[in-house]
Amino acid sequence: MESSNVMYTVCVLLLLVPRTFTAKPNFIVILMDDMGWGDLGVYGNPAKETPNLDKMAAEGLLFTDFYSASPICSPSRASLLTGRLPVRNGFYTTNEKAKNAYTPQVVVGGIPDSEILFSEALQEAGYRNKIIGKWHLGHRAQYLPLRHGFDEWFGAPNCHYKYNNKNIPNIPVYRDDKMIGRYYDDIKIDPERGLSNLTQMYIEEALIFIEKQAKKKQPFMLYWTPDATHTPLYASEKYRGRSQRGLYGDAVMELDAGIGQILATLKKLNIDRETFVFFSSDNGAATYAHQQGGSNGPFLCGKQTTFEGGHREPAVAWWPGRIAPGQISHQVGTLMDIYLTLLDIAGISYPKGVEFDGHTLISALFNNTEFERPMFYYRGDTLFKVRLGQYKAHLYTWGTPQDAQLMGYHYCPGQYIVNVTTDQMVDHKKEPLLFHLGQDPGEKYIISSSSDEYKAVIGTLLKVVEEHKKTLKRGAPQLNICDSAVQNWSPAGCDEVKRCLPSPKSKPFKCQWPY
Amino acid sequence: MESSNVMYTVCVLLLLVPRTFTAKPNFIVILMDDMGWGDLGVYGNPAKETPNLDKMAAEGLLFTDFYSASPICSPSRASLLTGRLPVRNGFYTTNEKAKNAYTPQVVVGGIPDSEILFSEALQEAGYRNKIIGKWHLGHRAQYLPLRHGFDEWFGAPNCHYKYNNKNIPNIPVYRDDKMIGRYYDDIKIDPERGLSNLTQMYIEEALIFIEKQAKKKQPFMLYWTPDATHTPLYASEKYRGRSQRGLYGDAVMELDAGIGQILATLKKLNIDRETFVFFSSDNGAATYAHQQGGSNGPFLCGKQTTFEGGHREPAVAWWPGRIAPGQISHQVGTLMDIYLTLLDIAGISYPKGVEFDGHTLISALFNNTEFERPMFYYRGDTLFKVRLGQYKAHLYTWGTPQDAQLMGYHYCPGQYIVNVTTDQMVDHKKEPLLFHLGQDPGEKYIISSSSDEYKAVIGTLLKVVEEHKKTLKRGAPQLNICDSAVQNWSPAGCDEVKRCLPSPKSKPFKCQWPY
Ligand SMILES: [Ca+2]
Ligand SMILES: [Ca+2]
Repeated sequence: MESSNVMYTVCVLLLLVPRTFTAKPNFIVILMDDMGWGDLGVYGNPAKETPNLDKMAAEGLLFTDFYSASPICSPSRASLLTGRLPVRNGFYTTNEKAKNAYTPQVVVGGIPDSEILFSEALQEAGYRNKIIGKWHLGHRAQYLPLRHGFDEWFGAPNCHYKYNNKNIPNIPVYRDDKMIGRYYDDIKIDPERGLSNLTQMYIEEALIFIEKQAKKKQPFMLYWTPDATHTPLYASEKYRGRSQRGLYGDAVMELDAGIGQILATLKKLNIDRETFVFFSSDNGAATYAHQQGGSNGPFLCGKQTTFEGGHREPAVAWWPGRIAPGQISHQVGTLMDIYLTLLDIAGISYPKGVEFDGHTLISALFNNTEFERPMFYYRGDTLFKVRLGQYKAHLYTWGTPQDAQLMGYHYCPGQYIVNVTTDQMVDHKKEPLLFHLGQDPGEKYIISSSSDEYKAVIGTLLKVVEEHKKTLKRGAPQLNICDSAVQNWSPAGCDEVKRCLPSPKSKPFKCQWPY
Repeated sequence: MESSNVMYTVCVLLLLVPRTFTAKPNFIVILMDDMGWGDLGVYGNPAKETPNLDKMAAEGLLFTDFYSASPICSPSRASLLTGRLPVRNGFYTTNEKAKNAYTPQVVVGGIPDSEILFSEALQEAGYRNKIIGKWHLGHRAQYLPLRHGFDEWFGAPNCHYKYNNKNIPNIPVYRDDKMIGRYYDDIKIDPERGLSNLTQMYIEEALIFIEKQAKKKQPFMLYWTPDATHTPLYASEKYRGRSQRGLYGDAVMELDAGIGQILATLKKLNIDRETFVFFSSDNGAATYAHQQGGSNGPFLCGKQTTFEGGHREPAVAWWPGRIAPGQISHQVGTLMDIYLTLLDIAGISYPKGVEFDGHTLISALFNNTEFERPMFYYRGDTLFKVRLGQYKAHLYTWGTPQDAQLMGYHYCPGQYIVNVTTDQMVDHKKEPLLFHLGQDPGEKYIISSSSDEYKAVIGTLLKVVEEHKKTLKRGAPQLNICDSAVQNWSPAGCDEVKRCLPSPKSKPFKCQWPY
């Protein structure tokens, strides 16, 4: 009986394999902010707040071993869009060893023009592209989405923290290439009550764009990336208090409902069979935020770290009629794979002379076969860990830095593993710590370096590292120089909405990355 | 759109509610051994080894907040079958405060005749009952299944540890009321290779019993409780090495496949709509066994403890045509609820004068509504914790006892929470520790006793405890007295298979419970 099931599955899959894609399908890349692997019902969250995502997984393919290229926002997002590691695309700092850096408003750098984003490749091939939500690839004019392959934008360049408009301006919200107001001043967020209609705005923007493109019959790429699960958390009146997890769970429920609406709209417009949808998150749950952060399920630590909790992401691929329903894939994948996967599906040739870290996921998506490839875990500019097969070697360990602890942060609350969750950066390169992620997904049980198992695999892992380092050409670091003058004082369009602010004089300084 | 969905669901559910059950349906209670909440795909295990259980959940109802009455085998199983807490049905010891006790071969006690098991109630109502697997309610003649409401048995009275037949005999395997051989001597288990065909034997027994009963058209209750996930682990040749988790995952895959075969047989025989199937496990995963143990997902600690990892269980209810598919229930439930639920479904009145700790789950199963009820977490004879709504109060904390640590055990590997995972039994009754399990399923964040939240709820929780203690009538403790003479030296039938062993003279002693 079982073998006939297998036969059936094989037959169905053969029919589904899109050997040639006759038309250019639409793409929707959904990227959550700080949502953890363990936040979805289908990955075991006891609160079960994601019926729509769980249904999306049941109708599509669920990845168990999918990763971000970085355990924090900006580098992860830059890597998604470039298909390249942060150390290549410039989203790192050399100011201090291995510090996690991102793009607050004072950062001078951003996505270099030399990087070809997949939005650019798709735009050139006739796609109309829209980003809805957080950009985070640099907030200065030359770095904004419409300069990098997007035709439309509704959202913001930075995180939605609240500022005072004196030392630091509130973050502008853009429609396309002009700001239309600022968070808190114009786009209401009530941080005390955790109340905002922003996710609803992002949902509506998505539905309108999809309907418009369906009517025009022009292929589109929508990058939908709301930030309600990034502190300060928010949800709309309709969702506040609805989950058993508090505001974080409320935000998850609202985002999940939005994803349900997006998929339902595709079906309603009868373009679901022409639209490839991919769901994931930019980094592990912010465990330091405690109950204001998400869940990394059985994994160790969270955002900011190179343990599984920092890098392992929820990931679901959905394409009715093309991707067979109810599949699980153990393919080791990364957000950087989206780039070549989209290009392959659209039949667009890869940009010449670019060294990609991502691979195409065609074989996983359409044949559910697996290929072996290494996963590299960087903290800042330093390669901390490498995975190959089920083995993960720790070259460096670092849990919560002591100075972060002094600020009240803890990346591994309730978790403690001797020699592993170290409070300083510890060099293990002479004898890397080895773990088997299949048997030990929580990185709890160090495989003894005197064991046959260790001796059998460590050499291969170290060879992979050596090979990687040899061929790695680092980009110019974008996150070294800061300057208060470059903040969002007067973005394009500020005069029309009377939200220009006086800028201080330029005074560049070395960015500080406390943790 | 969402409200019309709700309407639809309500209508469907109304149609499904079995107000009167016209005939006596069949029952299958599937109980795993030491399998953790986090071991199933549907509860988030990254290895995704349970396609059949995941499908069962998709076709039925998944409980997120389901508990065992005890964090170890014997008391949990006695509570399932009696619907009563171990301190009532006698499965505890008073030898030393709060020690976890069970039924090794030296134990003199077992299930008292005064307890009316649900097997007895069903048998009296015309059911034919079979247990396949581990009994664990006492191994002496008067305690065995056929003396307590079962018509058939294939399995063993105790755990499948290996002994030497000199100080301790190997465990007998019974068919009905006679032993047919002993583990290791006759029923092959290769502990070095983790190889045994036992699960396959248990599967075959189940399928034969179901087919026989279907043909006879006599209602049946099957209690299917294999022990392959209890150390020493085993799997058959076909499953060894198939999972990414090692032998533990192999055993899970084999059991899952067996459950798939059982459900497929019900469908094939066209009795799936007449059969209520319930799946769960007897206690939390044995975290002390490290990679040889299962996963408790995001929960704290494991077997032997009263943290969520010790008590929270996977639970799935399945009944095509009666239980609507794809449901999630947050009803707080316990294995002790199975008793009255089965009786309600079968239309059998409850035994008179019995104080049950279980409730009927009819409302959760057929209407997906929730009622509030407390959950009591006992370690041995001591009430450690109480849950009401989302709040859980710790009256006592105790992680790994120091003497267990000296023996190399650790119940909370990789987890450490100040004042919570204490290495001795700490009394917090003056100011119980309070947690919100919805926001903090991992019991990491103690709610400050000076907070309004604490003051608002602690009184209610303590009143519930007081009420419980006031009405609690303790049974005579069954696990106090031990005697080497009572071991399985010469069970009924041993002469026929030439497996009788010489017994030492009776020398009763106080049982020792080291942890
Ligand atoms: Ca993020
Ligand atoms: Ca057990």
